[in-house]
Amino acid sequence: MAQKAAENLRRVREEKPLVHNITNYVVMNYTANALLACGASPVMAHAVEEVEEMVSLARALVLNIGTLSLPWIEAMQRAGRRANELHVPIILDPVGAGATRLRTDSAKRLIECLSIDVIRGNPSEILSLAEKQSGVGTKGVDSVHTVDQVTEKAMVLAKELGTTLAITGVVDLITDGERVLRVMNGHAMMSSVTGTGCTATAIIGAFLAVCPNSLEAAATGLSYFGLAGEKAAARVSGPGSFQIALLDALYEMKEEELRAEAKIQI
Amino acid sequence: MAQKAAENLRRVREEKPLVHNITNYVVMNYTANALLACGASPVMAHAVEEVEEMVSLARALVLNIGTLSLPWIEAMQRAGRRANELHVPIILDPVGAGATRLRTDSAKRLIECLSIDVIRGNPSEILSLAEKQSGVGTKGVDSVHTVDQVTEKAMVLAKELGTTLAITGVVDLITDGERVLRVMNGHAMMSSVTGTGCTATAIIGAFLAVCPNSLEAAATGLSYFGLAGEKAAARVSGPGSFQIALLDALYEMKEEELRAEAKIQI
Amino acid sequence: MAQKAAENLRRVREEKPLVHNITNYVVMNYTANALLACGASPVMAHAVEEVEEMVSLARALVLNIGTLSLPWIEAMQRAGRRANELHVPIILDPVGAGATRLRTDSAKRLIECLSIDVIRGNPSEILSLAEKQSGVGTKGVDSVHTVDQVTEKAMVLAKELGTTLAITGVVDLITDGERVLRVMNGHAMMSSVTGTGCTATAIIGAFLAVCPNSLEAAATGLSYFGLAGEKAAARVSGPGSFQIALLDALYEMKEEELRAEAKIQI
Repeated sequence: MAQKAAENLRRVREEKPLVHNITNYVVMNYTANALLACGASPVMAHAVEEVEEMVSLARALVLNIGTLSLPWIEAMQRAGRRANELHVPIILDPVGAGATRLRTDSAKRLIECLSIDVIRGNPSEILSLAEKQSGVGTKGVDSVHTVDQVTEKAMVLAKELGTTLAITGVVDLITDGERVLRVMNGHAMMSSVTGTGCTATAIIGAFLAVCPNSLEAAATGLSYFGLAGEKAAARVSGPGSFQIALLDALYEMKEEELRAEAKIQI
Repeated sequence: MAQKAAENLRRVREEKPLVHNITNYVVMNYTANALLACGASPVMAHAVEEVEEMVSLARALVLNIGTLSLPWIEAMQRAGRRANELHVPIILDPVGAGATRLRTDSAKRLIECLSIDVIRGNPSEILSLAEKQSGVGTKGVDSVHTVDQVTEKAMVLAKELGTTLAITGVVDLITDGERVLRVMNGHAMMSSVTGTGCTATAIIGAFLAVCPNSLEAAATGLSYFGLAGEKAAARVSGPGSFQIALLDALYEMKEEELRAEAKIQI
Repeated sequence: MAQKAAENLRRVREEKPLVHNITNYVVMNYTANALLACGASPVMAHAVEEVEEMVSLARALVLNIGTLSLPWIEAMQRAGRRANELHVPIILDPVGAGATRLRTDSAKRLIECLSIDVIRGNPSEILSLAEKQSGVGTKGVDSVHTVDQVTEKAMVLAKELGTTLAITGVVDLITDGERVLRVMNGHAMMSSVTGTGCTATAIIGAFLAVCPNSLEAAATGLSYFGLAGEKAAARVSGPGSFQIALLDALYEMKEEELRAEAKIQI
């Protein structure tokens, strides 16, 4: 799988896939820069009048409900339906699902009306997508669960929703209901910067553009992102510098490094 | 008061209060990162359908009209009313009040219909909130007055509005109409980066979450932020690096440093 | 012309012109910081209720359709008409024109109903503004043409539209249909950061505020920005650090440096 990670990174850099993002205001600049740093070509567009046309030019669609409002949800649905028609892969980031009904319901509705390849979230966000949730809670956009606590539920849920779940935390868990992968790359500093989860989602989007296997795209994308986080953290001490060093690390990562240091457990 | 500053910082870091921001597009990423850097847990949410629910999870509400439009003002009013019901403290940043009627009127209407704990702005913005203003002017979002020129007017206005005013400049002035505090921390470089005023507001929001005394929360928050600015400026020469070093300095600040170097004059 | 570049930079720093931006979510923070770094005073405002009042305080208006939606286009039209009445210069950035009909049509409509001083875009975006375009294509917001391939078409188009076109690439081409200027400053790293095109546009906006000759304002602004890019690239290796170093370089640029190193070919 480490070999696959390096190969996917190489292909993103060679093919520079256009990744269409309908995402939140907080992370737009940062995720666009992260996509550029890993070699992809980002575009941000949310107007209902243009999203279908834009997504038809793209090789992946990233939907992120971080600062959602109703017109944006409508744009996500339209773009998503067109993406499904054209077999453009979709990744959804249900930011803050579980915190408010608008977020939980919007995420669920997107999952119902679209065929989504990967859903990436923290444990609380992912659990909130289950039909019968009990004891789910979030603290705004932060999780109150660890990945380990949710493995079994995640497998059931992935099967139920017919998608690949990428649940990120100290260890990342990726499952399509049958198989389970764990990614051990990453660094604690990543949670001290806003939007690292959203950035992970965008990077998986770029990997989905070149790798049709959702489970592999998610695991290898997360491994690449996590390893960049490790390398960035080794250079700096504060979260401001870390945010910048992380972009540099994504850009500078050698494919051989990723092959040697990716920690993906099958 | 320096002791209190250190204590408030410690409490923010220990309690990691959720701070709900309805703020402007320009600073969303930066203020979220600043809140994380000081230990708080930021969430940005502006949809009228969810703001009441979101603010009920939060321990402070930050309202910022920097890139306002009518739906956002409505969201601010809804969130604010719910915050008042739940005794969640509110801080308002009337960005650009005085520059356009929409901004001045929106800020005044929020002040009228809500009980607001702290209003933070530059001298021109704050003066524009007075019923009978004369000779008030702003240059876009920049002040044409100094803090010293407005002390007396500010005391009258704070009493009139029944709130604490935090007026920032070379020296910051904080008054509830009775008492006046001055904060001498800060650095000229802070005005060469966009949104430092908005960031000051967000940080006071985090301090309000752990400190019920508005005057003290505002003064100690500004002292912490200003001192971080001093430390950041000592490390770098340009505004790009400064913006990043400021986040690092917020994160790295030791409570003892703040206790020793906070310059709050009663 | 290098002398003129230095003079324009000096005037921006002395006069600190207010530059009103109606721009996209992705670059708002960065372009505001870039405008501050070069000495101008940025304001971002998009509400239809206030744009006419705001632009009447400004000395230049920057219109950027990067994340456009219908209400923002209406705001651009209102602000633009008022700017025309008051002889406030306007610069338009038709981000992604050619990629979707909404973008192409919106850009064309702005050009029709407003008198625009400068349009800055990449070759594909600019070509898409021609009435009869053939073989134009874009990849999201990226160009598929080089500047050299479009010189003649650009001269015809500039005359047709009655504006100055600033087409940026490895070499920048500026033409009003009669004269052609080329700017050879810049660095490949600039295309690895999102929004450098938008930032170039904003900086030309600041230069337009102090220099009534559109052709000269565009060429000198691009030369300054490109030279800052060269200086930033000499210091760093990755795109994260580059983004920050570029702001520092804009701020630290000496007027004599610009005079000595501006590469503007007439």
